Amino acid sequence: MSASTPEARLEAMGLSLPPPPEAVANYIGLRIVDTIAFVSGHGPVEGGQLIYRGKLGQDVDVETGQKAAQLVMLNLLATLKAETGELDRVENVVKLLVMVNSAPDFAEQPVVANGASDLLVEIFGSERGKHARSAVGMGALPFGISVEIEGIFELRA
Amino acid sequence: MSASTPEARLEAMGLSLPPPPEAVANYIGLRIVDTIAFVSGHGPVEGGQLIYRGKLGQDVDVETGQKAAQLVMLNLLATLKAETGELDRVENVVKLLVMVNSAPDFAEQPVVANGASDLLVEIFGSERGKHARSAVGMGALPFGISVEIEGIFELRA
Amino acid sequence: MSASTPEARLEAMGLSLPPPPEAVANYIGLRIVDTIAFVSGHGPVEGGQLIYRGKLGQDVDVETGQKAAQLVMLNLLATLKAETGELDRVENVVKLLVMVNSAPDFAEQPVVANGASDLLVEIFGSERGKHARSAVGMGALPFGISVEIEGIFELRA
Repeated sequence: MSASTPEARLEAMGLSLPPPPEAVANYIGLRIVDTIAFVSGHGPVEGGQLIYRGKLGQDVDVETGQKAAQLVMLNLLATLKAETGELDRVENVVKLLVMVNSAPDFAEQPVVANGASDLLVEIFGSERGKHARSAVGMGALPFGISVEIEGIFELRA
Repeated sequence: MSASTPEARLEAMGLSLPPPPEAVANYIGLRIVDTIAFVSGHGPVEGGQLIYRGKLGQDVDVETGQKAAQLVMLNLLATLKAETGELDRVENVVKLLVMVNSAPDFAEQPVVANGASDLLVEIFGSERGKHARSAVGMGALPFGISVEIEGIFELRA
Repeated sequence: MSASTPEARLEAMGLSLPPPPEAVANYIGLRIVDTIAFVSGHGPVEGGQLIYRGKLGQDVDVETGQKAAQLVMLNLLATLKAETGELDRVENVVKLLVMVNSAPDFAEQPVVANGASDLLVEIFGSERGKHARSAVGMGALPFGISVEIEGIFELRA
């Protein structure tokens, strides 16, 4: 049935993958070693533009930060799908580093990061989608974006 | 002899593992790929409470930061033991990312991080316990904690 | 021909590897699991001294930051070569985490990070040298250094 693929579940949520983002400097979107994909830090790109700029706890509220985290994850998944062909090749989501552009006293990075983590659990299911994670506050991020996420994924052999 | 296990060495140091901490959001404590365990960022939990809050170089001194780092590592090891049964299943400590909540001019993250690294070398011994590491200054951390640590561990096959 | 090794390409660029840096605390320069080398965070050491201190966007300009990133990468490669004997044992550069000591509004971390990434692509070639990457802004770094980089490298079996 159609809802059996991560792509179909995305569609059922009213979401879709953007085109895989262009690297903004001298790097590539991911590297695979054996069955482990190490994916570059991604930002909140929509329609070719970086949106969701500014710091949590200063310019951006938590709910908006969650939307940013979800959009970052859609971009990251677009990079992964461009390489693997099908998101179903993901055996397990292994680990995320969720980096939140934070005012010095902002302390709700885990809530912001759920915008990305919830999406992964939703589309891959709890067993494959649940992951290790750090969600932390950065002093600054490229282009002033609010959230950047890098990830490690296990692929089917 | 009893001192031959990491758990026995902990006890000989007068330390003990806390209960494995509950995830504070939608993630799990670790993911294992083949023989590599990727462990989530952990905080300084004692008696079910996050203690050691505030920034190094502003609210918290270096010695207290080291105690925080040691407590974070005890929590991380509790997560690892809950999954592996025995800490002796750790073949090697591979790498830590020690994230220190830092005032902008705080520069002694390596000294703080030794609170965690010294513990690992003590209980696993120098050969298995020595590890690669980054010890860096974060703009902010969840709940205002002083130290967060994520880690990579190689397990016996 | 001599330009066929990474070391020869370095020399052709007028660059050379420093002595492998001493760990400044209780850790080691890298750990290898199977064919994956996890390399510690490195700093800009030259002649045994940490140079390039201060924050981007405040004390240090982007061009200087790029030089710092290049010097950090030379130090990281020195650690890798000390362990592997030959840089040609690097099958692929997998991933970098480029941590830039940043004023709160500094936003050009990717440009700074290219100082390291360009060097890798130059000496390993595009196929082996291109890598996944995050380039982000830290609130503070050890000893006030401007750039710290950790990396993951795939080695030939």
